[in-house]
Amino acid sequence: MQRQNDAPRADAPGFVALSARRIDAVLERWLPTAADVPGRIHASMRWSALAPGKRLRPSLVYATGQALGADDALLDAPAAALELIHAFSLVHDDLPAMDDDDLRRGRPTNHRQFDEATAILAGDALCCLAFELLAREMPAGDLVQPLIAALGEATGTRGMIGGQVLDLLAENGPKDLEVVRAIHLRKTGALIRAACCMGAIAARADRSALAAVTRYGEHLGLAFQITDDILDETSTAEQLGKATRKDMERGKLTWPAVVGLEAARRDAHQCADEARRVIAPYDGGGLLGALADWVSGRDH
Amino acid sequence: MQRQNDAPRADAPGFVALSARRIDAVLERWLPTAADVPGRIHASMRWSALAPGKRLRPSLVYATGQALGADDALLDAPAAALELIHAFSLVHDDLPAMDDDDLRRGRPTNHRQFDEATAILAGDALCCLAFELLAREMPAGDLVQPLIAALGEATGTRGMIGGQVLDLLAENGPKDLEVVRAIHLRKTGALIRAACCMGAIAARADRSALAAVTRYGEHLGLAFQITDDILDETSTAEQLGKATRKDMERGKLTWPAVVGLEAARRDAHQCADEARRVIAPYDGGGLLGALADWVSGRDH
Repeated sequence: MQRQNDAPRADAPGFVALSARRIDAVLERWLPTAADVPGRIHASMRWSALAPGKRLRPSLVYATGQALGADDALLDAPAAALELIHAFSLVHDDLPAMDDDDLRRGRPTNHRQFDEATAILAGDALCCLAFELLAREMPAGDLVQPLIAALGEATGTRGMIGGQVLDLLAENGPKDLEVVRAIHLRKTGALIRAACCMGAIAARADRSALAAVTRYGEHLGLAFQITDDILDETSTAEQLGKATRKDMERGKLTWPAVVGLEAARRDAHQCADEARRVIAPYDGGGLLGALADWVSGRDH
Repeated sequence: MQRQNDAPRADAPGFVALSARRIDAVLERWLPTAADVPGRIHASMRWSALAPGKRLRPSLVYATGQALGADDALLDAPAAALELIHAFSLVHDDLPAMDDDDLRRGRPTNHRQFDEATAILAGDALCCLAFELLAREMPAGDLVQPLIAALGEATGTRGMIGGQVLDLLAENGPKDLEVVRAIHLRKTGALIRAACCMGAIAARADRSALAAVTRYGEHLGLAFQITDDILDETSTAEQLGKATRKDMERGKLTWPAVVGLEAARRDAHQCADEARRVIAPYDGGGLLGALADWVSGRDH
């Protein structure tokens, strides 16, 4: 991890661990249980939504919301909605018709543990529940419409789902950095950017703060995904809890596949530096900058 | 079609045809086009959302909303959201892992026309767009939260998706009318009931009107699905635009499979009668009653 100066650093991994415990308790409370009919799909939804994970997106909602002065109680619903959308996307991306993966977060993928029909429906239900929770759990008021619009835009074809389409289309295609960049900005970047924006919306951030947070989220998302690409090439399945080097085998367009490992590491750090720079005016405690560094320096 | 009295009848098929033209123009405007990147998924979304269809759910939003005095401009977003959710459910239900159908609305199913990955993602995107449209297209105010909560509940595991799970679990199971009833109330009933409720919510209906509309939607939904089951047994694929008698071949639990064709016809008409009875105090023009009769008497 690069150190830019000698100021005391906020504890990014500690904050993420704390946020993960908080959001897991929230999800545990808001997800239907296997005792609710039909139990099988609820078990399937829980299998994926409560699987071990970093909970990066909820952490970013809490971090940006708190940095911009949001009422803390308003952050749980946006954080939960983003984690549910993330879980839904993993369930569907792992399906045989898409990336056809057997292992995710150290456990069998949803369609392996249950079956394909259940996995498709569980993903669908996680997606609906994300939007429903925002409508149901946010207090009545003017925040819900911009929050749901932001989540919808980040999830749909201009965001995450559009990125997955571009990713599938680019398999075995020419190695073009602009194409990889467009895929990353949508496929993982859109939700990460939305996490930052939704924290800012909950804080009723003004236009310039929202613009800074948006750019921060964009650079942090890119730093995260470039690092993810690097780890896919350099880690073992045990370290990552999912199959590695499948990107390469499948002819996926990744950042290191285009520029090489060393340049990819440099680019990830540059994105993190840029994220820290644009958010600095709003980052009193230094946590948002530390999160950007953590994202580009992590080894899992 | 049964006639209960000699009063002049509202023109249900005419109203549905008019509503279909209106919602198709709305969807045409709000759906991204194949010229928007990535074009393939937008073409796929349009293939299913704009395919020929009755547009029953939007029609019910317009009919209940107008009967209860809603501002007409507030009904397009709920109507569009319901039709998008309906289209999403058809795309996913037709997938090989679910009902594995090749024909829908007289054309190849989405995964046949495009491919399986595109169909899964197009369904996902239609689902997100439904919620996003409500947040984006409704004027700022207090209607969006109850509308989105109602749509989410009707779509998720307590509604449509839960019904699809029960339907898959019941294949080749014992012929139990209570089980068929539970499946129908969720799988098709939940969205039809939600269409009526969302029209009433947009009209700021009071508690007793909302209760009447809810019971109306429930009975009308049951009348519709029992009739659908009957048509699957008695029609040709040409008449329905989809494969027929597949329910029977697949061991699906249907209403006539449990009680026989004649009793099923009687039950559909009884449900329509009950729908007309509960909504009568709010049905000045007689359109809602006529829609219930139309739904249980249609031949396509």
